[in-house]
Amino acid sequence: MNDNVGIDDMEVHIPKLYVDMLNEFAPKRGIDPKKLKYGIGITEMSVPDSYEDSATMAAMAILKLIERNDIDPKDIGRIYVGTETGLDHSKPNAAYILGMLESKLGRYSLKNCGALDLKFACASTSYGIHDSLNWIRTEQNRGKCGIIVATDISRYDKNTAAEYTQGAGAVAILIREKPRLMSIERPVGICTKDEPDFFRPLHKDAAVVDGKRSNKCYLEAMEEATLDYTNAATSMGFLHVKEYETVLDHIDYMLFHIPYPKMAEYASTFILRRLWKNTPIWNGIEKEIGKRPNRGDFASNKEFEKADHLHRKKLSKTMKFKEFFDSKIKKGLEFSSRIGNIYTGSLYLGAYSTLVHEISEGNDVTGKKFGFGSYGSGLTAMVFRGVVESTWKEVVKNFDLRNRLNERTVIGVESYEELHEGKRDHKNSILKPENEFALVKIGSGPLDEGYRSYEFIA
Amino acid sequence: MNDNVGIDDMEVHIPKLYVDMLNEFAPKRGIDPKKLKYGIGITEMSVPDSYEDSATMAAMAILKLIERNDIDPKDIGRIYVGTETGLDHSKPNAAYILGMLESKLGRYSLKNCGALDLKFACASTSYGIHDSLNWIRTEQNRGKCGIIVATDISRYDKNTAAEYTQGAGAVAILIREKPRLMSIERPVGICTKDEPDFFRPLHKDAAVVDGKRSNKCYLEAMEEATLDYTNAATSMGFLHVKEYETVLDHIDYMLFHIPYPKMAEYASTFILRRLWKNTPIWNGIEKEIGKRPNRGDFASNKEFEKADHLHRKKLSKTMKFKEFFDSKIKKGLEFSSRIGNIYTGSLYLGAYSTLVHEISEGNDVTGKKFGFGSYGSGLTAMVFRGVVESTWKEVVKNFDLRNRLNERTVIGVESYEELHEGKRDHKNSILKPENEFALVKIGSGPLDEGYRSYEFIA
Repeated sequence: MNDNVGIDDMEVHIPKLYVDMLNEFAPKRGIDPKKLKYGIGITEMSVPDSYEDSATMAAMAILKLIERNDIDPKDIGRIYVGTETGLDHSKPNAAYILGMLESKLGRYSLKNCGALDLKFACASTSYGIHDSLNWIRTEQNRGKCGIIVATDISRYDKNTAAEYTQGAGAVAILIREKPRLMSIERPVGICTKDEPDFFRPLHKDAAVVDGKRSNKCYLEAMEEATLDYTNAATSMGFLHVKEYETVLDHIDYMLFHIPYPKMAEYASTFILRRLWKNTPIWNGIEKEIGKRPNRGDFASNKEFEKADHLHRKKLSKTMKFKEFFDSKIKKGLEFSSRIGNIYTGSLYLGAYSTLVHEISEGNDVTGKKFGFGSYGSGLTAMVFRGVVESTWKEVVKNFDLRNRLNERTVIGVESYEELHEGKRDHKNSILKPENEFALVKIGSGPLDEGYRSYEFIA
Repeated sequence: MNDNVGIDDMEVHIPKLYVDMLNEFAPKRGIDPKKLKYGIGITEMSVPDSYEDSATMAAMAILKLIERNDIDPKDIGRIYVGTETGLDHSKPNAAYILGMLESKLGRYSLKNCGALDLKFACASTSYGIHDSLNWIRTEQNRGKCGIIVATDISRYDKNTAAEYTQGAGAVAILIREKPRLMSIERPVGICTKDEPDFFRPLHKDAAVVDGKRSNKCYLEAMEEATLDYTNAATSMGFLHVKEYETVLDHIDYMLFHIPYPKMAEYASTFILRRLWKNTPIWNGIEKEIGKRPNRGDFASNKEFEKADHLHRKKLSKTMKFKEFFDSKIKKGLEFSSRIGNIYTGSLYLGAYSTLVHEISEGNDVTGKKFGFGSYGSGLTAMVFRGVVESTWKEVVKNFDLRNRLNERTVIGVESYEELHEGKRDHKNSILKPENEFALVKIGSGPLDEGYRSYEFIA
């Protein structure tokens, strides 16, 4: 078995349009901008133009990855797509994406490439990464690389509390043996439950979400998956947690799924309280913030949950927590706060963000361990670990998303609403597509009703 | 690497209702029953009742598999679902299915089980099988088994040529190391192209299909995937095709995706003509049916294709072909002719059918090689090989689908149309659900709009 496998490179594609959430969206919706900036952690929101969709964003991210690495299409053995923004019930986004790529790379240049769409809310990409790593580990790949792309547009009804957590973007991940960026270890921890916290029925463009329930589901599933990961990694010989240590002592950066940046803080307090409980650290913290509330001491569940939330809030203000948060979490949040929720890609956008921070600050992260905490509503959670390779800088020096974010076009709430409500079709976009794939036709004949056609517009 | 992996057991679930295609459907639609029986190969069509959907059928198939094999839910490491009949854009069928199973097996009994939906028309299940085999090969499974379930309802508009190729069913496949039924080899051949032969846009219940184009796509993709398989298997040391041999000399049963049984014959003639071309067999056949038509000898592509089709038809009448077809193909077609097209599951229903035939006829298939030819419109094709284990009879003796097919309830075209057009909701089904999972509610409130609830009805 070839176990030296992992992420060789990554590319992020985001729409050129965005809304300024603090100076434009908040006042127009009558929301305190501070709530968005500090309560949620959002300052800007990516908005796809009317010629963009989940397939164009993914194709753009992959094309850039292929071009930058000068990959011969014949050496690509699979393109897997993690998405909950499918464009057809039967035909996967992967086929549309492959068609776009071949229009640039040569017809049938990807004819022996596997392709598949994966679906489980925001977690599918994580499954695709592991299944593709195993495809290389078993040498079923015949020396070829694999690409997994996460692509989504998060969309909620207007004037709901979820509206300001929307976003759009794609993250393409190049999987290879002897990866230059980060090897990924085999142990995986999982938690799956059938929960109605978030879903999008077939007749709706916008998701149905019970925000409070979804937060609770997320936190409990992340905790359970972390415990399962600890068992898996310990039994497989990848982890040795000593007495008074926790698994987080063996992780240098903890990446969570980021529906909005503040959620990463909630996840951290929730998990740390559980993990620190049996360590000497907790004695000091208990002195500072008191014991964790006990359900039996409260008349109702609601009262208990309020007190419990307050206890976690107090934990988040302690020095110990801040130290943990600033060193292991915070650097992963920058891009999400400027893009919004990109669903399946958000976890990987966090890894990208962390790496950009560290290279900008001149830090060497060789050998550092990234903990990935994937969450998909409905629900499934997955925890695993990656180790940064010594060649990481060669790769990360090309991560130019920060520049591209600064070059975007700002739009007002009126334009955003036209796009959100489908009042502009692909022929009537806000910007003209330029140097990118664009939707150019949706069929309406008996044999092409609803079929989508794309072109690369120079 | 643990490479002794494969299919340990299989279970098929089909609806209790069916339409008699020869005595009921054909006369009501004014079609010659002979066209259905001989031209297409269909005699009966499975119809899901209004309390059934792609999730209930899958849950039923898995439940039977678990109960028959007395599997502890804690020993199930993943449930992957291949489907193009998804029930939500974000929440996978896998989560609904897991919820149903836990209602029988115990709450949270599957809490550490991975779950995912896979989509690429009728081919996704094949991807799921290989990715799950690799998960075991790399020991990422921690000793657990995996289940892949194919589940679909094929649906076309009324009064179209595709209407009589509809069907419904689920096939659950138990993946394990040291499989009792069939080991699956690592080499995989693939062909993928972006084609509009068949798709189902988001606003439609029925697929859009260009039948003629889809047949052509299927045949060419199958041929390309077979060549890619030959390359893969040869280079990986699994296949040694000698001079004057073809890869089909190394396959005892060839299973194809079966949209309708006659398609397997088309696929065979198309591939054999290509493969036999350089073997001594072809000399005899050419003497009998003439040379393959040459495009240059025809004024139009249409005329050429007509002649080419006729040539393949002549091939299908030769003794050599009949010998091949009867021994390597025909036994796989029985159940499809009585159920219809079950999309992702149809290839595996063909394997099941073949095994049932051989055990009924008292033949020992130990060591026999099954060639799998998976096809998904849009398009992707995958070819690989399985080898029957000596313990196969222990498993196949429990394959009781033939009995269950005989116990179904026949319905008339009027009842079928009520179901097809959604005139009956889950509360107004034709049969009362009995000893099975049933849809019991579709939510309509602000937090459960479109959410589906299921129960096991004793």
